[in-house]
Amino acid sequence: MDKISKINQTIQSYYQKQGVSSDLSEAVLYSLEAGGKRLRPLLMLQIIEGFGLSLTDSHYQAAASVELIHTGSLVHDDLPAMDNDDYRRGQLTSHKRFDEATAILVGDGLFLDSFGLLAAADLPDKVKTALIYELSLAAGSRGMVGGQMLDLKGEKQQLALPELQKIHANKTGKLLAFPFVAAGLIAEREDEELTALAKAGALIGLAFQVRDDILDVTADFAEIGKTPQKDLAAAKATYPSLAGLEQSYQILEESLAEAETIFQNLMKEGDFAAGQVLQTIERLRLDA
Amino acid sequence: MDKISKINQTIQSYYQKQGVSSDLSEAVLYSLEAGGKRLRPLLMLQIIEGFGLSLTDSHYQAAASVELIHTGSLVHDDLPAMDNDDYRRGQLTSHKRFDEATAILVGDGLFLDSFGLLAAADLPDKVKTALIYELSLAAGSRGMVGGQMLDLKGEKQQLALPELQKIHANKTGKLLAFPFVAAGLIAEREDEELTALAKAGALIGLAFQVRDDILDVTADFAEIGKTPQKDLAAAKATYPSLAGLEQSYQILEESLAEAETIFQNLMKEGDFAAGQVLQTIERLRLDA
Repeated sequence: MDKISKINQTIQSYYQKQGVSSDLSEAVLYSLEAGGKRLRPLLMLQIIEGFGLSLTDSHYQAAASVELIHTGSLVHDDLPAMDNDDYRRGQLTSHKRFDEATAILVGDGLFLDSFGLLAAADLPDKVKTALIYELSLAAGSRGMVGGQMLDLKGEKQQLALPELQKIHANKTGKLLAFPFVAAGLIAEREDEELTALAKAGALIGLAFQVRDDILDVTADFAEIGKTPQKDLAAAKATYPSLAGLEQSYQILEESLAEAETIFQNLMKEGDFAAGQVLQTIERLRLDA
Repeated sequence: MDKISKINQTIQSYYQKQGVSSDLSEAVLYSLEAGGKRLRPLLMLQIIEGFGLSLTDSHYQAAASVELIHTGSLVHDDLPAMDNDDYRRGQLTSHKRFDEATAILVGDGLFLDSFGLLAAADLPDKVKTALIYELSLAAGSRGMVGGQMLDLKGEKQQLALPELQKIHANKTGKLLAFPFVAAGLIAEREDEELTALAKAGALIGLAFQVRDDILDVTADFAEIGKTPQKDLAAAKATYPSLAGLEQSYQILEESLAEAETIFQNLMKEGDFAAGQVLQTIERLRLDA
């Protein structure tokens, strides 16, 4: 079974187990199964393998935990009081398919469940508490949620590029960087390597956001599965609007190249096999 | 400093530390400082002390973590799409004082931050992962959030008492039972005592809900800090509406008495000092 199928299976079996009301698990799985690319868990698993570990169910549980939080954040971001989106990944958003109260509870459940999934994994307790600490920090008030709050306030004013970067570093960057650090923690690597992994994660986070902003301008509904040019219509600060489209492509390319260099250095210095990771990074490129 | 002041100080210092945007920490602290009774952390600390441990900052961090989740759930329950309440604990609810998007993010932040606060506590990793697992289970899809979903669906139909009990056992019971089990885990007690603590916690959870339902009928705004008779007006299934007021007082009294017996047995069998715990339970009594 390929990694993405096994990630999906891990998520499904967690919500098909006893103890979740059928209404809630239906709504939770509706959002979880909407066909995301599973970029965060995939990168975590590829880096763990890169360090020479054979993947276990526990690694899949750790990887799935970040996807739960990511999906919960999308469900809440789409709410009428937030971005008010009707479509996500090509299907109706949770509050349109069900109702607003259900969508709020779906996100809440995903946030709260993810730490239990992580805590139940068969990994050393020391590793698990480190993972839980990092995941909470990446997702909560000091990470994703804090960035979302900055973004809401930023919508009401003119932003410069450094402010936009700060918003993105928190809103999407930290949760995208988590799988890199998490893989290093699971492989019990030295601090120096954890620092390099964190840096690579931040670069991929930046690249991913710039890529998303570019696609909002250049892609159509079929390509991105949500309403295109929404940022443009809302006159929202984005990389293309602040730095221009050409410069945005350049930032994307430079971030990806710098992240690749970090993995190539890890390969040279240690026993790291970066093959799959480099392929995943390659797939984030866009033709200018 | 008394326990409640120190719980409040622990919460404040967590949100005044670096890394939280000022808009978000203002809104988070607005809800956290609205003057709850801190029943959950208080019980946890009193039981830990009952087992003969001297309270440390780490115990306060563990105790505060459940208050963060409890507060987050109140903020989301009050949202227009949920119970649509304007007042809570005598002050405007978060979405009335700020706006709906902020209230959603406040709850999200509280949920996600609580696990980081717990993971950072200076307790053995084995104890922390057990606490995190239990907290996630009590709060997420298999606990509080799942119960809230059952409650939403239940509003649309006639409920019988066993269905109401199932809703409450999940919606409020499990998170109220968490501090009892958590205190036993922190004191590293045997499984048999953990089971007794879980049972006492479930009884207090039931008592607390019945009490809340009774107060909705009998109290005025000044006493409960929120709009009274809201359940009555919404023709919502409650203990008084399904079992009658007199029978509700009796269920409340019996649950409290049974929980007290558990603590008296713990005192007889072990080195447990239940004084403060019994006082806190006593305060949940209402004059019939």
